Amino acid sequence: MYEIGKDLYTETGWEVLKRSYEAAQAITEGSNFMIGNGFMGYRGTFAQDGKDEYAACIVTDTWDKADGKWEELSTVPNALFTELTVNGERFGVSEQAEDFERKLDLKNALTASTVTGQLSDGTTVTLSEEKFASYHKKHTVFMSYTFTTSKDAEIELKTGIDFDVWSINGDHLQNHKPFTHPDGSGVSCTTVSYEDEVTVVETCKLSVSADEKPYQFTDGMGRTLTFKTEAGKPVTLVKSMTIYSGNDVNYPKDEALLEARKLGSYDEEKTAHEKEWSRLWSMYDVIIQNQVIDQVALRFNIYHAIIATPVHKSLPIGARGLSCQAYQGAAFWDQEIYNMPMYLYSNPEIARNILTYRYHTLDGARRKAKRLGYDGAYYAWISGKTGDELCPDFFFKDVLSGRDIRNHFNDWQIHISPDIAYAVKKYHDVTGDDAFMHEYGAEMIFEIARFLSSHAVYKPLKKQYEFMRVQGPDEYHENVDNNAFTNYQAHFTLKAALDLLANLDQDVIARISDKINIKAEEQELWQDMIDSLYIPEPDENGIIEQFDGYHALETIIPAKKVTERLIREDEYYGYPNGVTVFTQCIKQADLIQLFVLHPQLFDRSIVEQNYDFYEPRTLHFSSLSPSSYAIVAAQIDKVEEAYKNFRKSVMIDLLNTNEAVSGGTFIGGIHTAANGASWQMVVNGFGGVSTSNGKLHLSPGLPEAWSGYAFNVQIQGETVHVNVTKEQVSLTKATDSPSELTVNIYGRDKSLSEKTTVINR
Amino acid sequence: MYEIGKDLYTETGWEVLKRSYEAAQAITEGSNFMIGNGFMGYRGTFAQDGKDEYAACIVTDTWDKADGKWEELSTVPNALFTELTVNGERFGVSEQAEDFERKLDLKNALTASTVTGQLSDGTTVTLSEEKFASYHKKHTVFMSYTFTTSKDAEIELKTGIDFDVWSINGDHLQNHKPFTHPDGSGVSCTTVSYEDEVTVVETCKLSVSADEKPYQFTDGMGRTLTFKTEAGKPVTLVKSMTIYSGNDVNYPKDEALLEARKLGSYDEEKTAHEKEWSRLWSMYDVIIQNQVIDQVALRFNIYHAIIATPVHKSLPIGARGLSCQAYQGAAFWDQEIYNMPMYLYSNPEIARNILTYRYHTLDGARRKAKRLGYDGAYYAWISGKTGDELCPDFFFKDVLSGRDIRNHFNDWQIHISPDIAYAVKKYHDVTGDDAFMHEYGAEMIFEIARFLSSHAVYKPLKKQYEFMRVQGPDEYHENVDNNAFTNYQAHFTLKAALDLLANLDQDVIARISDKINIKAEEQELWQDMIDSLYIPEPDENGIIEQFDGYHALETIIPAKKVTERLIREDEYYGYPNGVTVFTQCIKQADLIQLFVLHPQLFDRSIVEQNYDFYEPRTLHFSSLSPSSYAIVAAQIDKVEEAYKNFRKSVMIDLLNTNEAVSGGTFIGGIHTAANGASWQMVVNGFGGVSTSNGKLHLSPGLPEAWSGYAFNVQIQGETVHVNVTKEQVSLTKATDSPSELTVNIYGRDKSLSEKTTVINR
Ligand SMILES: [Ca+2]
Ligand SMILES: [Ca+2]
Repeated sequence: MYEIGKDLYTETGWEVLKRSYEAAQAITEGSNFMIGNGFMGYRGTFAQDGKDEYAACIVTDTWDKADGKWEELSTVPNALFTELTVNGERFGVSEQAEDFERKLDLKNALTASTVTGQLSDGTTVTLSEEKFASYHKKHTVFMSYTFTTSKDAEIELKTGIDFDVWSINGDHLQNHKPFTHPDGSGVSCTTVSYEDEVTVVETCKLSVSADEKPYQFTDGMGRTLTFKTEAGKPVTLVKSMTIYSGNDVNYPKDEALLEARKLGSYDEEKTAHEKEWSRLWSMYDVIIQNQVIDQVALRFNIYHAIIATPVHKSLPIGARGLSCQAYQGAAFWDQEIYNMPMYLYSNPEIARNILTYRYHTLDGARRKAKRLGYDGAYYAWISGKTGDELCPDFFFKDVLSGRDIRNHFNDWQIHISPDIAYAVKKYHDVTGDDAFMHEYGAEMIFEIARFLSSHAVYKPLKKQYEFMRVQGPDEYHENVDNNAFTNYQAHFTLKAALDLLANLDQDVIARISDKINIKAEEQELWQDMIDSLYIPEPDENGIIEQFDGYHALETIIPAKKVTERLIREDEYYGYPNGVTVFTQCIKQADLIQLFVLHPQLFDRSIVEQNYDFYEPRTLHFSSLSPSSYAIVAAQIDKVEEAYKNFRKSVMIDLLNTNEAVSGGTFIGGIHTAANGASWQMVVNGFGGVSTSNGKLHLSPGLPEAWSGYAFNVQIQGETVHVNVTKEQVSLTKATDSPSELTVNIYGRDKSLSEKTTVINR
Repeated sequence: MYEIGKDLYTETGWEVLKRSYEAAQAITEGSNFMIGNGFMGYRGTFAQDGKDEYAACIVTDTWDKADGKWEELSTVPNALFTELTVNGERFGVSEQAEDFERKLDLKNALTASTVTGQLSDGTTVTLSEEKFASYHKKHTVFMSYTFTTSKDAEIELKTGIDFDVWSINGDHLQNHKPFTHPDGSGVSCTTVSYEDEVTVVETCKLSVSADEKPYQFTDGMGRTLTFKTEAGKPVTLVKSMTIYSGNDVNYPKDEALLEARKLGSYDEEKTAHEKEWSRLWSMYDVIIQNQVIDQVALRFNIYHAIIATPVHKSLPIGARGLSCQAYQGAAFWDQEIYNMPMYLYSNPEIARNILTYRYHTLDGARRKAKRLGYDGAYYAWISGKTGDELCPDFFFKDVLSGRDIRNHFNDWQIHISPDIAYAVKKYHDVTGDDAFMHEYGAEMIFEIARFLSSHAVYKPLKKQYEFMRVQGPDEYHENVDNNAFTNYQAHFTLKAALDLLANLDQDVIARISDKINIKAEEQELWQDMIDSLYIPEPDENGIIEQFDGYHALETIIPAKKVTERLIREDEYYGYPNGVTVFTQCIKQADLIQLFVLHPQLFDRSIVEQNYDFYEPRTLHFSSLSPSSYAIVAAQIDKVEEAYKNFRKSVMIDLLNTNEAVSGGTFIGGIHTAANGASWQMVVNGFGGVSTSNGKLHLSPGLPEAWSGYAFNVQIQGETVHVNVTKEQVSLTKATDSPSELTVNIYGRDKSLSEKTTVINR
């Protein structure tokens, strides 16, 4: 048994075990031990739990704005609710229980718990729960609920659908219409803002016969089952919960009932589900030799990355996945920059899906641009279904004054648009998927270039274009000019746009231009911007200034010292008046992020100098930060420094290291970007994987703590299994494809003509 | 006797009388009853007063930064300090005194007081003080100090130089070296930051003989005079205080002693001083018929405008004059926009002096521009001797959080530069002073045009120049784009620059260009900006938007309602997070100020519509605001509305209507801009005086409350006395100049061929 953290263990690197129950950890563990499948996230709570224990099932594509301010996903009625009474005494998970264990089975994507305790009459009860959100039938969650009594006992089992679940900003579902039906009981309700129907259907099967009578919840529906147990003989309740919304199908209730009718037995469904997960792991698993803690932490992150990603249609990956409603179930730049790479190199279809979502929200991005006085596509900082901006003008509170803060994530953080263009271009570079580029990608890149050219300003005396009043990845400094990251990304995008115009077939260009009318003067402007956009260059010390005037701000090293200036611990650190604003203390990787995205752009010495300069100035107060520093540290062969950041990043959720509340806003839940970045830290970081003009580059390093690691990487449709040991790197193609694949390893081209190629390290 | 306000009277319209002494009013009355002459301001305190009563003599050109943050004028040792003891009992001004009166004699620029009280032994004492800051000998203040006892009495008179005077931000003078000399006692000291010498010399003459022995102050020097009085027989102490600094002369001590030696008797000096003031009033006085309160209030303001204005060399007019150290004794845009017009139309030499000061600080403006990344001349928001920016980055405090606020008066409020260009152009238009334009004015205008063209950004898709991230006159809204006032002023400046280039003699241009190298491409840029600078036009309702996005802000009418949102009364209202920031509530005239400066630019209906739109949105929380609304109201013949604003504006200091502290910073003292604006409200407001291409325009209106008014106005070297009655306007030329002068009155040209021309209203 290996200890991950306090009371947190793994045995094989495939599971997370917790050996004690702490009520105070309900928010965190509810997220960490959750199950999900991209359609829904069912929090890692227990059958007995309700709103107070943060029980919730968050469902994609159910956005609603009940409080008139926050548009977020709905949490649906909980059809797995079950409460056990033995000999008149309630029994369940509690801090008083004799024995407790919970488990997140990563391999099979199951969450399970067992609790044993003694009643006041001396009867010992053991209760086990197991749940999974089927990856085979994505609308359904299953639960198997088994208990045994040490003596014959009188049982009362309340089980049904609890309507009163955890919701952060208002009750999103109303007009609950319960129904019973031969195929299952259920409830239909509608969202407040859009009146979308949501139906939840429950099935319920007890292994013994029982008296049944309706049980009146305060806010729910269900039944009380009474029966007797025999000593030592387990009784099992199997439940399923099927969810459909009006955004999934035309008749959610009919569809849910139909699905409920067709469900197989618990074991049949579990087998089908496990088969799916076996397929998933064959694509995404990364093996770490000789370090079980790192292994389980990495798998934990990959697991959460997978269950956060919608696959049934083009929908965003939420910044907290489906672990809770924080961050509105919506996509940020995290999606393309932190989550997409794992898919891009392992299962490009999902990467395509992610970008198709951005194509579907192009009109929303056009609307945002227009509303703010720009042209083209300005993608939402917080992007839900339509791509219209979900980020409110005011969200953090100045806790010192009690006044709302106007942050400008929604109108000044423009890098989101070129970041998406970058992802499109990268997708094409790795996959060679011309069809996607013709159909969707090129139009997106043109519209983003158009946006950038409408945002840029020209300084006539300096003869250069600049981007003024922006916010880079470091969100504590707003209203800055020429954020280096943003300007480089914009330059990349404009070049991509002109490259496409130069290289795409004329009929493709004609078709797109018919639609979006790319004018000759625009093309000239893009070219002029490529030539004259101000691109902050390394200074005499090799340092690229994060934005104009950054160097003139107060230096505080290490950045963490700035926290001594806090008046209250829960203050917001950033714009306009937080403690970091007039200092060089930055929230997260900003300039460093540029090296993550463009590892070939700068000489290694420049990367090194900037790493050394910015690292002590970085607070890492974003879950997006340690992974970027890890990847860049690996680039410059600071392998142990990379490893330190890797450990920090993979433990963010497991050890609950990040603040759950900032400036009065709940920002807890699973850090989906960090999940996706875990994979990147190994593959793109230690493995040194990148691509340039469609060619795979690798330069694997190995931290002291590991004896080796292995991963798959797909390039141009070919999957290569990479196995790194202290001595060598072996590359094994998945197929015996006759086509030769050339990769660049440690700076030299190598043709993978054999099935396996071995290179000495 | 006419009552101005509580306990505040006038008899003839030439004096302000106060009939009770209130210690709590010491700050306010010390300013209101002060004396001064542009070299120094001696506060309206009493001979007995010290630091606790805010006794101070503020001296021009003694800037110092004792606390490392605030550069402000020094307050020098007080050589008029005198304390009276009668029969062992101290006597002086107090709240317990039987009888008290103080007077500010506006005609003769004297401040005086008389106090009568009874001692515990029954002796009645009457003490009178009179002081003037000589306008004839600007380095010297005089005091006549006379007292009478009702019975013979033992007197102890402590009189000397008190070093411990009021100073807001630190003690500016140090290393005090007292000295005695046959010509006078004195002290030399040095400023902290620049080690400038300041010497104060005292002379002291008692009308009776007395025993004299040195008196040890805690922080000062002097003597105790003991003698006896006879019942009913007045004793007079005459003192003088002469001040020189190392910025005035090379040997301040020698110079001060020399001046002290040459002083005439009190009466001789007083006569010479009064003669100067008679000359001043002949130029600046404005007569109001039939309304003594308005008359005295107006003269009170003109008096303060005069004593605030340095005339001995090119120095700034402080925003609080020399009444106290607030606003750093430095010039703001107030100087050109609020103070200069009175001089321009009455005594253009002083207007020239003001602009020469700006020429002398051109290098400071160049340094500021360069430091902030611009070219040309970006004048300091707070301009002291060198024109380097005195405005600190942080000055207001967020009283709710206790944290300093970063306001951007010093880097974003760019309109100061074109405002100065406007003043230069206006000066030339009124005076025809080509020599000034050739020597100084043109270079300033070119350098300001250059600054503007380096600040402007070009939006390629909109094909227009814009000014981004600025702050208009309304200081509550910072970081705005295309503030209409700023853009119009910039456009005016660029046109002025090109007009000069087109019309100046080639040798003049060659000489200037030799110095500042006006490049052909710059001229092209200026022309391009004249053609393509975005100039906010009236919308379909005639409204010109104050800045981009103003209309989208929350409307609160009347603006005053926004104060209900205050959490604390002393909070700062503005950027970044005050109550007005996200509303249309504005601090002061902004767009309306444009009409003050350019009364001929818009159709009257446009002015009317904007007045009606912006007035209810204006808080008038700046002393610069009511006067601008008064002038514009008069333009559109809202004469009674203009009168209401006139009353508000002229009473700002007299009735102490404005806040003395904002966001934790002391901003009390005399409101010099409002003083200057008082003259404008009558002449430019009610009188409708303006100029266009060197021609005088008038369109006098008359508020109900007045039966008439009269003023002088100088145009092209000719002085015209304007007398307005209910029935007619008469214009009388000062000289029988043979040259015909044509003025435009009520929209029609009229040749003033006779000495007096009468027009029916
Ligand atoms: Ca490497
Ligand atoms: Ca008029």
